[in-house]
Amino acid sequence: MTVTTKTNPGRFFEDFRLGETIHHATPRTVTAADAALYTALYGSRFAVQSSDEFAHRIGYERSPLDDLLVFHVVFGKTVPDVSLNAVANLGYANGHFLRPVYPGDTLSTVSEVIGLKENSNRKTGVVYVRSRGFNQHGYGVLDYVRWVMVRKRDEAAPAPEEHVPDLPAAADPSTLGVGCPPIDGEAYDDVLAGSLHRWGDYARGERIDHVDGMTVEEAEHQLATRLYQNTAKVHFDQHAAAGTRFARRLIYGGHVISLARALSFNGLGNAFHIAAINGGRHVAPLFAGDTVYAWSEILDVAEAAGRPDVGALRIRTVATKNRPCADFPDRTGGEYDPAVILDFDYWALIPR
Amino acid sequence: MTVTTKTNPGRFFEDFRLGETIHHATPRTVTAADAALYTALYGSRFAVQSSDEFAHRIGYERSPLDDLLVFHVVFGKTVPDVSLNAVANLGYANGHFLRPVYPGDTLSTVSEVIGLKENSNRKTGVVYVRSRGFNQHGYGVLDYVRWVMVRKRDEAAPAPEEHVPDLPAAADPSTLGVGCPPIDGEAYDDVLAGSLHRWGDYARGERIDHVDGMTVEEAEHQLATRLYQNTAKVHFDQHAAAGTRFARRLIYGGHVISLARALSFNGLGNAFHIAAINGGRHVAPLFAGDTVYAWSEILDVAEAAGRPDVGALRIRTVATKNRPCADFPDRTGGEYDPAVILDFDYWALIPR
Amino acid sequence: MTVTTKTNPGRFFEDFRLGETIHHATPRTVTAADAALYTALYGSRFAVQSSDEFAHRIGYERSPLDDLLVFHVVFGKTVPDVSLNAVANLGYANGHFLRPVYPGDTLSTVSEVIGLKENSNRKTGVVYVRSRGFNQHGYGVLDYVRWVMVRKRDEAAPAPEEHVPDLPAAADPSTLGVGCPPIDGEAYDDVLAGSLHRWGDYARGERIDHVDGMTVEEAEHQLATRLYQNTAKVHFDQHAAAGTRFARRLIYGGHVISLARALSFNGLGNAFHIAAINGGRHVAPLFAGDTVYAWSEILDVAEAAGRPDVGALRIRTVATKNRPCADFPDRTGGEYDPAVILDFDYWALIPR
Repeated sequence: MTVTTKTNPGRFFEDFRLGETIHHATPRTVTAADAALYTALYGSRFAVQSSDEFAHRIGYERSPLDDLLVFHVVFGKTVPDVSLNAVANLGYANGHFLRPVYPGDTLSTVSEVIGLKENSNRKTGVVYVRSRGFNQHGYGVLDYVRWVMVRKRDEAAPAPEEHVPDLPAAADPSTLGVGCPPIDGEAYDDVLAGSLHRWGDYARGERIDHVDGMTVEEAEHQLATRLYQNTAKVHFDQHAAAGTRFARRLIYGGHVISLARALSFNGLGNAFHIAAINGGRHVAPLFAGDTVYAWSEILDVAEAAGRPDVGALRIRTVATKNRPCADFPDRTGGEYDPAVILDFDYWALIPR
Repeated sequence: MTVTTKTNPGRFFEDFRLGETIHHATPRTVTAADAALYTALYGSRFAVQSSDEFAHRIGYERSPLDDLLVFHVVFGKTVPDVSLNAVANLGYANGHFLRPVYPGDTLSTVSEVIGLKENSNRKTGVVYVRSRGFNQHGYGVLDYVRWVMVRKRDEAAPAPEEHVPDLPAAADPSTLGVGCPPIDGEAYDDVLAGSLHRWGDYARGERIDHVDGMTVEEAEHQLATRLYQNTAKVHFDQHAAAGTRFARRLIYGGHVISLARALSFNGLGNAFHIAAINGGRHVAPLFAGDTVYAWSEILDVAEAAGRPDVGALRIRTVATKNRPCADFPDRTGGEYDPAVILDFDYWALIPR
Repeated sequence: MTVTTKTNPGRFFEDFRLGETIHHATPRTVTAADAALYTALYGSRFAVQSSDEFAHRIGYERSPLDDLLVFHVVFGKTVPDVSLNAVANLGYANGHFLRPVYPGDTLSTVSEVIGLKENSNRKTGVVYVRSRGFNQHGYGVLDYVRWVMVRKRDEAAPAPEEHVPDLPAAADPSTLGVGCPPIDGEAYDDVLAGSLHRWGDYARGERIDHVDGMTVEEAEHQLATRLYQNTAKVHFDQHAAAGTRFARRLIYGGHVISLARALSFNGLGNAFHIAAINGGRHVAPLFAGDTVYAWSEILDVAEAAGRPDVGALRIRTVATKNRPCADFPDRTGGEYDPAVILDFDYWALIPR
């Protein structure tokens, strides 16, 4: 019997080199079917992504795929190379949506290692990657940074020179809008869109409870995570999970982001396009059977440079589990309310 | 901190005005992906909706979307405006399918308030709406009446003048057939369709046990109901449901109708098009883990005016939970068998 | 009250005649939505089936549907006629994939009864059928034999003359390759495909542990099995199942094959096309909540006649439940390890 190792063991911390480029496998043609599955998984109701007619009338070719669906597909490709041996996905930053993705486009991902920092326990280290999603024409559609804590294969392996990238707290509003065609505000029908509130109606500091709750089932997050071809073992293997601290499968953090974003329609119905991800943090894990709620704060209201048609809202969306958000559970003095699971900071575009 | 109410609180009973028109949000482009998801959710096997070849050969452009899928999408849009504060969905009547819906069509819904009746407890009232679904060309595809019991915001609010619309017990057969192109009965292949029984083989009073059972999972009804962008909270929020009478999420009634219709293929395999919904009543709630069975009675066998190709069957389909239907559990003396969950009366077209 | 039997009772053993041809119902147009659902259900990552660009570059029109998706759809059609009264699905053999299936193709199935053998208990018998799947142009896309144990309606019914077909242990490599267009090996990008191992890198006797595990939920296998319009009652009816030996719904065996094949990407990432099914046996049932693992052995490495572009690997994939496969749980002395649920022998094509 010959036993060979043709399987992918994933990279360990000491396998990453600062500045190296990783071309990820499994390009993926996304279609209207991915959009329909996305609707079935999250119940998203933004008119631009729901109706080809609506999208076409305001300036898109047709309905673009949901920005977060694009994010998940682009992200999924990085998992076998970046986070198969990850202990935790620590955060996202500096994300930009660069171009609409339409049904029929084929997405692929390339990452660059932009930071490395071994932890003091010498058992793990933090890897920073900038990942870029491209369409079949080679145009970038998405660009973001994430950092993950990755196990070392060998504790004795020498630590690389520490390099922590300098990341902006938020995208500059002047960079927003490249991923959104010019919008015909006259053609944008607020009644069909489901919200009468446009850019000028939102104020810095405003808080919105998104009210509704969504309970998550194992089958749902597994279907979603496989749809994104995200192979992280922790989401799928209950037999292995039984022996872990949580004794449960962990739900892919991106699933929570999409749930919170879909819930946020109730209050942010015209904020149809995510232009940039400023930062994201999974504060606590979500498990099947839990119910997700969300609230948002308007962190900033800005003009999008050169765009008389749309303005930008910097939104911080906080998601909780098993706790409605009428009183805006938050972080106080560095400590999060124990119900909080997600703290997500992004720029959205909304008609003026 | 500024807290604003940009979220949709839904309408309460006293917010409805007789005769008012409500344009519902979130137009939806339906595609072959919705059809595939519908198949995955219900296992429907009607050849016309399953095979573009079969449909084209008998006279359709290609496979139309399942009539009930159209119903659910059109219905879903009404929820945020009509039934967000509903206590119960009481019934449907006077529904007509007016035109085939094909992949790529975009559906939107407009409702008219056609009846109002406050309940004697003054806490709730019944709202009757006629909802019309349109395609992107402005043509009506579906038209139906439903009535729901809606909470009052304020018990002291004055009661509107009572008006209960007069609704026909069943559609007149002369009105059927508009939603179905001329069918080439020679080209209609009974073997491929899976049934040798055509219009002339059914008799008034005939009863058919559909035999098979289908157990429903939480993930399934949630995926379905989100696919229809139906936002009724009772289907999705287990945290809130835990404190209610049933302590469970309620399954969207339309999910039961679709399950019963899919089961009815076994005995009604050629009754490929729902032409009209005469009436529908959700007798009892369905919960995840329950198994649905169904039986049907042929209430009437009629010619469809001006249609030598197809005839009409008026069918009453009764669905039960956790009880096979070999002995046709029914209503006796006004009381339903405790297993009955649905009593659905409709006209279907079937080749002659 | 008239009760008629228009429902399909299914065939019993004595209803089958050697040599008879059965045209199965419900032709099915398969689309990109079926491909997306397949990805969501199994997480498959073969680049040819995932990316239209990748597939087109190497010689396909676009991404073909996964071979096993085609198998399941073709198989599903046979259930109402062949295995509605089956006690057990005993095995598959002599399967050939004859032509790529693309989104938009319409599949139908015809079976021939090629063997009959009553069991000594006289209560059941084994039926052998050769089923052929066709596309809308009448071209064969798949051809395979399966045998099932079917109940007799009447124990006293006379036994048919026994005939057991002679089936080859494995397809001859000279017959492989008809279902795969000429592949441009230069254009085949190993990095995008996710594996650096081509035909020449595999050796007879080599064993590969596919490492990852996938837990199955009720909603998942039900969605899959309905998507294939497979109506076997044992997969869907928990109320009836409660009274059986297992007290659970049984998971469609094909679901296990697809899970094992998707897991096998990790080690066999370039073996993109199943050319032939030599044999398959469901050793033990799988239930929801179980976690599936798999390992493979390279049984043979062969040239595919007339194909300088691709070679063939004869692969035996063994799937287990709730037991990782690092030590290759197997059959020893005729007895399978109790964790084994599937023993599947097939030929795959892989670029040279």
